[in-house]
Amino acid sequence: MDRLEKQLAFLLEIDRQKEIIRQTYLADGSRRESDAEHAWHLAVMCMLLSEYANDAIDVARTMKMLLVHDLVEIDAGDTYAYDAKGNETKGAREQKAADRIFGMLPEDQGAELRGLWDEFEAMETPEAKFANALDKIQPVLLTDQAQGKSWREHGVRKSQIMGRNERTHEGSEILWERIRQIIEKNVEAGFIGGEDSGASDSSSV
Amino acid sequence: MDRLEKQLAFLLEIDRQKEIIRQTYLADGSRRESDAEHAWHLAVMCMLLSEYANDAIDVARTMKMLLVHDLVEIDAGDTYAYDAKGNETKGAREQKAADRIFGMLPEDQGAELRGLWDEFEAMETPEAKFANALDKIQPVLLTDQAQGKSWREHGVRKSQIMGRNERTHEGSEILWERIRQIIEKNVEAGFIGGEDSGASDSSSV
Repeated sequence: MDRLEKQLAFLLEIDRQKEIIRQTYLADGSRRESDAEHAWHLAVMCMLLSEYANDAIDVARTMKMLLVHDLVEIDAGDTYAYDAKGNETKGAREQKAADRIFGMLPEDQGAELRGLWDEFEAMETPEAKFANALDKIQPVLLTDQAQGKSWREHGVRKSQIMGRNERTHEGSEILWERIRQIIEKNVEAGFIGGEDSGASDSSSV
Repeated sequence: MDRLEKQLAFLLEIDRQKEIIRQTYLADGSRRESDAEHAWHLAVMCMLLSEYANDAIDVARTMKMLLVHDLVEIDAGDTYAYDAKGNETKGAREQKAADRIFGMLPEDQGAELRGLWDEFEAMETPEAKFANALDKIQPVLLTDQAQGKSWREHGVRKSQIMGRNERTHEGSEILWERIRQIIEKNVEAGFIGGEDSGASDSSSV
């Protein structure tokens, strides 16, 4: 039962995904969410919103991709979307993490999960494009509900959010259109900085 | 876009799944896990352990079932497995919750999710049997890692855990055999009360 023991060891190792805390607050603003909660939310979003994907997608594969897309953060940590410095080293840190974490599994399953993660990162298939769109959309939905809490804390500006969502439309034009409206509403409310607000220094967010 | 608005309202409503806290501690014992984290963990377990299901299962449907199986707890709360009193009223509370929560979705999707939840609860299909097995196995794996923390806190006895897992073997004989060994190990370590320990009053746990 060496195979089962490897699988169980992996499943206990990834329990640490619950201890990686994101910048995004829950919808009620009470606390930040964990990576595991984020991945759960994305998988359910995928179940319910796949009809809006630009291209027909394999829903099951996309859900699997979303469930494991942040596992590398167990070693590499969560890099806040608007942390310019952290994002410079993110790629190398995450590749090393992927080698170790997916390497714990029996070879066939390690290769399958590594493949899903590589596919997500490459953002080329319809599934990966849609999964990446959901990954960008979900924090906007939550932060909108939480009165812009994490945006205000970090002095995030509209250009940063638009840059971060540059390819969201490739996953779903319909969802992107709705999210764009929500972003505009939050710019008008002052929860997201406008282009000339000068409220924050781009090198530090 | 009334359909999309209903879907987004549902997806924000179920964010509260992150605020339902279970009795089970994370593997490192640092804090209890949320329902959303539990559901995420079960879905990944399903991806990796489906080869041990007694009967061939539809992995994607089982994952979906696991992702939504605890949504009713948003209204009904989490009822601890060994809370005899709470379990008396659990059924009625959860049915009412299911009507409200799944009723928020467009009719087709509400029916689909309600169907998955009903299937999980009925525990008749191979998918539901395997999903229920994972739902019982996961807390044993975590609590074993956490030195029996929640079992010790509640004075849980072996007969209670065995009763709770009475049908786990219907989902997977192989996984149940492994879990049975883990339970025995914890009885020997004193983390789970033996049959004549008299350490706890069955009416209060």
